[in-house]
Amino acid sequence: MAAAWDGFKGRLWKEEVNVRDFIQNNYTPYDGDEKFLVGPTDATNKLFDKLQELQKAEHNKKSVGKDGKERIGVLDMDTSIVTGLTAHKPGYIDENLKDLEKVVGLQTDKPLKRAFMPFGGIKMAEQSCEQYGYTPDPELHKIFTVYHKTHSDAVFDVYTPEIRKVRSSHILTGLPDTYGRGRIVGDYRRVALYGIDALIKFKEADKAAIGDGTMTEEVIRLKEEVSEQIKALKGMKEMAALYGFDISKPATNAKEAVQWLYFGYLAAIKTQNGAAMSIGRVSTFLDVYIERDLKAGVITESEAQELIDHLVMKARMVRFARIEAYNNLFSGDPIWATLEVGGLGQDGRSMVTKNDYRFLHTLENMGPSPEPNMTVLYSKRLPENFRRYCAHISIETSSIQYENDDVMRPVWGDDYSICCCVSATQTGKEMQFFGARANLAKALLYAINGGRDEADGLTPGVQVGPEYAPITADVLDASNYKEVERKYVAMLEWLADIYVNSLNAIHYMHDKYYYEAAELALEDTDLKRTFATGIAGFSHVVDSLSAIKYAKVKVIRGDVEVKNKKTGEVVEVVKNLAKGFEVEGDFPRYGQDDDRADDIAVWLLKTFMGMIKKHPTYRNAEPTTSILTITSNVVYGKATGALPDGRKAHEPFSPGANPSYGAETKGLVKSLNSVAKLPYHYALDGISNTQTINPSALGHDKTEQVDNLVNVLDGYFDIGPDSGHTGAHHLNVNVFGVEKLKDCQAHPEKPEYANFTVRVSGYAVRFINLTKEQQDDVIARTCHAAL
Amino acid sequence: MAAAWDGFKGRLWKEEVNVRDFIQNNYTPYDGDEKFLVGPTDATNKLFDKLQELQKAEHNKKSVGKDGKERIGVLDMDTSIVTGLTAHKPGYIDENLKDLEKVVGLQTDKPLKRAFMPFGGIKMAEQSCEQYGYTPDPELHKIFTVYHKTHSDAVFDVYTPEIRKVRSSHILTGLPDTYGRGRIVGDYRRVALYGIDALIKFKEADKAAIGDGTMTEEVIRLKEEVSEQIKALKGMKEMAALYGFDISKPATNAKEAVQWLYFGYLAAIKTQNGAAMSIGRVSTFLDVYIERDLKAGVITESEAQELIDHLVMKARMVRFARIEAYNNLFSGDPIWATLEVGGLGQDGRSMVTKNDYRFLHTLENMGPSPEPNMTVLYSKRLPENFRRYCAHISIETSSIQYENDDVMRPVWGDDYSICCCVSATQTGKEMQFFGARANLAKALLYAINGGRDEADGLTPGVQVGPEYAPITADVLDASNYKEVERKYVAMLEWLADIYVNSLNAIHYMHDKYYYEAAELALEDTDLKRTFATGIAGFSHVVDSLSAIKYAKVKVIRGDVEVKNKKTGEVVEVVKNLAKGFEVEGDFPRYGQDDDRADDIAVWLLKTFMGMIKKHPTYRNAEPTTSILTITSNVVYGKATGALPDGRKAHEPFSPGANPSYGAETKGLVKSLNSVAKLPYHYALDGISNTQTINPSALGHDKTEQVDNLVNVLDGYFDIGPDSGHTGAHHLNVNVFGVEKLKDCQAHPEKPEYANFTVRVSGYAVRFINLTKEQQDDVIARTCHAAL
Repeated sequence: MAAAWDGFKGRLWKEEVNVRDFIQNNYTPYDGDEKFLVGPTDATNKLFDKLQELQKAEHNKKSVGKDGKERIGVLDMDTSIVTGLTAHKPGYIDENLKDLEKVVGLQTDKPLKRAFMPFGGIKMAEQSCEQYGYTPDPELHKIFTVYHKTHSDAVFDVYTPEIRKVRSSHILTGLPDTYGRGRIVGDYRRVALYGIDALIKFKEADKAAIGDGTMTEEVIRLKEEVSEQIKALKGMKEMAALYGFDISKPATNAKEAVQWLYFGYLAAIKTQNGAAMSIGRVSTFLDVYIERDLKAGVITESEAQELIDHLVMKARMVRFARIEAYNNLFSGDPIWATLEVGGLGQDGRSMVTKNDYRFLHTLENMGPSPEPNMTVLYSKRLPENFRRYCAHISIETSSIQYENDDVMRPVWGDDYSICCCVSATQTGKEMQFFGARANLAKALLYAINGGRDEADGLTPGVQVGPEYAPITADVLDASNYKEVERKYVAMLEWLADIYVNSLNAIHYMHDKYYYEAAELALEDTDLKRTFATGIAGFSHVVDSLSAIKYAKVKVIRGDVEVKNKKTGEVVEVVKNLAKGFEVEGDFPRYGQDDDRADDIAVWLLKTFMGMIKKHPTYRNAEPTTSILTITSNVVYGKATGALPDGRKAHEPFSPGANPSYGAETKGLVKSLNSVAKLPYHYALDGISNTQTINPSALGHDKTEQVDNLVNVLDGYFDIGPDSGHTGAHHLNVNVFGVEKLKDCQAHPEKPEYANFTVRVSGYAVRFINLTKEQQDDVIARTCHAAL
Repeated sequence: MAAAWDGFKGRLWKEEVNVRDFIQNNYTPYDGDEKFLVGPTDATNKLFDKLQELQKAEHNKKSVGKDGKERIGVLDMDTSIVTGLTAHKPGYIDENLKDLEKVVGLQTDKPLKRAFMPFGGIKMAEQSCEQYGYTPDPELHKIFTVYHKTHSDAVFDVYTPEIRKVRSSHILTGLPDTYGRGRIVGDYRRVALYGIDALIKFKEADKAAIGDGTMTEEVIRLKEEVSEQIKALKGMKEMAALYGFDISKPATNAKEAVQWLYFGYLAAIKTQNGAAMSIGRVSTFLDVYIERDLKAGVITESEAQELIDHLVMKARMVRFARIEAYNNLFSGDPIWATLEVGGLGQDGRSMVTKNDYRFLHTLENMGPSPEPNMTVLYSKRLPENFRRYCAHISIETSSIQYENDDVMRPVWGDDYSICCCVSATQTGKEMQFFGARANLAKALLYAINGGRDEADGLTPGVQVGPEYAPITADVLDASNYKEVERKYVAMLEWLADIYVNSLNAIHYMHDKYYYEAAELALEDTDLKRTFATGIAGFSHVVDSLSAIKYAKVKVIRGDVEVKNKKTGEVVEVVKNLAKGFEVEGDFPRYGQDDDRADDIAVWLLKTFMGMIKKHPTYRNAEPTTSILTITSNVVYGKATGALPDGRKAHEPFSPGANPSYGAETKGLVKSLNSVAKLPYHYALDGISNTQTINPSALGHDKTEQVDNLVNVLDGYFDIGPDSGHTGAHHLNVNVFGVEKLKDCQAHPEKPEYANFTVRVSGYAVRFINLTKEQQDDVIARTCHAAL
């Protein structure tokens, strides 16, 4: 290790796996400006041109599915190779340009070719091929049905009829029962710092230390898991060897550090297609290697930037085979390769390094891009130069998001990564049992309708929830608000129960059939596990309750025919279900900085989180919740009838914790204030807020715009005693006008729109890659014309 | 169901799965003699001739293994088909005679062809082929290493170095970590009584009733297991359909009942290669169908006997692919297709039916045979005619064993089956976590040598057990007996601990990777689980302790070189290890009906069982133990150094609970009395006793021999207050002289020895199929020349 670690300070990290300690002992904070940055190298330009060609070919490639339907967006797929660490021969962006690639490694043997990943679910893997006109090898079907059971099949084996019903009605949606749960960030830096051989030794010592000899199920399971991790580590070495690298020993320079780290990540994306495949907090870490090489004169700034550009290029190339239904939920091929810059150390020092600039600068060197999902861990204590540079990049590219380091650091320390779009996780020390979302707006309708799915639901009139007494009043107002609240609470209790238990089944089976050995090999053996539930329809519940409490809501009732799903035959007619609502009078809304509404918001969050906490969780995972929906707000809305806040049936929900469309009548700052009142510690999985600001609202010129955006961010994320904020957690910043969106929708072929990136909710997409429906939704969102 | 159940009485069994209730309501006790029995039909003779030819061809077939070694005894093997319910096309004893088969169904497509069973362990499955010159398809290797993990691989993933050491030294042996645990008796009668469709419905109702909605790991696991059971039931229907039968509905007559039942058993032996694959208690059940058909005049006695002959013929044909090491442990291809006759009901009625005679009569119609492992559930309250017929069959064939219904019925009820050689289990209500054996004789040497393996052990001088203080005295006698006892108890505590925990790991993984869906589909969902540990070297420990207590044992000491396993290099020289013993003076021995020795035997059993009970067991299984070794007494002995009782290093142990060779100086009855003092409830998994009696010792003519054997059995199994017996459980009865054994060893080719069957320990073998070593052992055993 001596040579590889030459010049590095500290002791703890040498004696145990402790990347944080290495970083804290060795990083060089940078508070200068961006002037040191350099443009792309020739190699970068050539490779990126090639990648652009490939992406264009992919975007335009038309495939005809087995169902006869034409689909676009898939360049190539595997049909006979089961993905694995060493399943493919080495692949390059371009065989003829491979010497230019400073960071090598593809998921398959060809760029943008999608691997066959059956372990999560064979049906899904097959469908994802067939919908794009590919035919998977029938032998694989036999292997993954007769010989090896897949995660999805196992989950459905244990689902109760009740769980199947809540899935069908979509009061629970997006459950990771047909895809990988993801949201695990391997500490890929470990590969660079320690090399695989040392990591194997540490894991072997860990394995030997599990339990006192009594073979409880917990002990047996963990021992087997660590065995699988050790096999995965050995597999990583073989994988790297295919590309001509020996990663058994630590990286000795910056180039190797980037390459080793990427091999760690590559192992993850070769073996798992998770809900999110974050890269993690790698910037400051890599800066240590680059600084050493710069000081030693063995690397130039241009070479340093090239390494980062090439690493980022690889992150832009990650693809998974996906079915249409998934694409409808999350358009634009997102993989949430989330990567952080910024943040402060626990000792108060800024962790911003030159490398944080380099990562952001990739958005200039190679233009805007949704991936990697670039995230600034924000604090007003970050160097002003850096905050201004971030604002500049936001204004130019709308490709970055901000998260409040000041609320996360006390919980997760100073070495957390974002494991999905916005959710924090301690790097290398934690995994998440991802749980998608419960539709709390639908639950309000269930409370009103005694557990029956509403007329405009996906399973109209069906008794999905418990048959509690419905609310029979024709007018809902202050006089019966308590009844509404009481019945809603009862229905939420039921929902929290079935939600947690569905997730318990899912994660038990995920561990059993689709264990993330490669990712968890790069995490501590003694893991913390969080149990990440989520809320959808948040703003609509708050506004609906506010409407009832402060105005008058007339209930429009009607009969609903319950039909047999297969035959279409009417099996029951349900009388007097609430089918719509008419609001009379004004009421305070969430997003107006009005405590009357915002108090309901806080109450809702606390109430639901409290219910989740009551239930036993698989492996005693720590329950958390989130208010984030990514783009699924559209699909959730589609499955939900009209609401008492005036939202019509099937209309999209507002995304994440955003106020409802049309509610933000008092300007951006008031809107931000409402969201910032939600206590972060009740929603540790994240509170996502997406805002679009018209450039002109920010200022007349670039400097003014930067000034103002920094002010907005400083203000929003301030949780000081005078701020009134308890938890401002996340902000997506788009800087463009609605006209640009409309023009892009009308003329997607214009070259300037090829990479036009829009932050939607916790992630970004190329606007042209969204479905028409989702584009409409983005256009409908509030674009603040004034602060 | 109405037609199928026409004429059957009772109610409970119609409303729930309750075969016992069906039997008790409908069986016809028979206390007559054997005169009603008839000889084999033409069809039986033709098929059996064919089978004899096949068995001869199998016995003589020479194969050259991949290792160049010649082996015999395997006729044919699968190399590319993975076994499964419907993996093979239908197979028959002889394609040209298939219309003669009244009971159809083979494990593979050809008679005596062995299936490829990789789920227990791919290495084992491959080796079993390769040792006989077959080459398994390499694609299967990939599938069962890369895509699907097997039971064995998983177990070794979690074994601690300590467990590996105790396996290597053989202080624990025969652990089911490379083969199926077996010892599960599906209630195959259910297929006949209910038909598959009804069984599926019952299982679906069971599945819905698991848990209260809270998805604990227990609930999830059981729900998934029942899902797999339901799939297996569906698979059984398909399997039967390949043979042209629809088993979705109940059997309507005796022929169908036998066939349906056999299909249930066939499902088990097609999918599992367990430590034992018992058929269970089917005789009285089938008699109900035969009686109905006989009364209705739709079947003759000859046809009835033919059905039973053909069912038994099928049981004689079960084969598994096995490796040489397994064959060394258990010679003669045993599969423990144990099948019971006799027994009493809880209401005091004899459960002997005509069918019990028919099953025993197969040993006359088709000659002696080790399989099915015919077991008489004995009580002196069974009809005298039946007891005499059993004795007659024993004298003629040495092919049956006896177990004491009077000790088992109070524990297991009146519908238990023998799930291995001698272990009882409630039919359809219980499964066993099989655990092979701990070598308690070796443990005594470890106590003396401070945890080091003895000089003549398999890992000489290695510190296998804990480094407790050794016994340093050069003479062991009454003066230091307490020290020996104390140190032995400490070492046993360690052994019990590591034993239970090894088994916990094994059974966790068995459930995970090699779940017995087909067998457990025919058992209750709410299962009782026993945790069956076992004791080897029992008599030698008892006699050794007795020698120390009542005589004087000189310890011969010497140095032992500990060598590196791979290099052979000496890594340590251990001083003064006990290497041998010289006994001065006489001492009482177990097998002489002397309480001084027998009290030590009872103490040893109680002590070890008490230690086993202390430890947490997987799925809260109920711990039990056994004193039975089958033929493994030879292998256990081989791994064990000299003992203080005078037994030399490497000599075979006495089998099971048998007194040591040479100890039984006071005659058969005294020997039996010693064994009968062991309390059965401390060894609920069984106390096996194998005895050989010279025909002349039994009497001058057949009648006298039968009289005397019945007397011996009545006396041994009597647990009445005057008997002095607390648990006489099992007796293997061989009736022949040692000369016959010696002649057979010298002239195995003589036709009269082709089926010469010897009860060894809990099972029977053809003597010619034993290894030379095992033959020598059988010859060395006491052959009682006087009662």
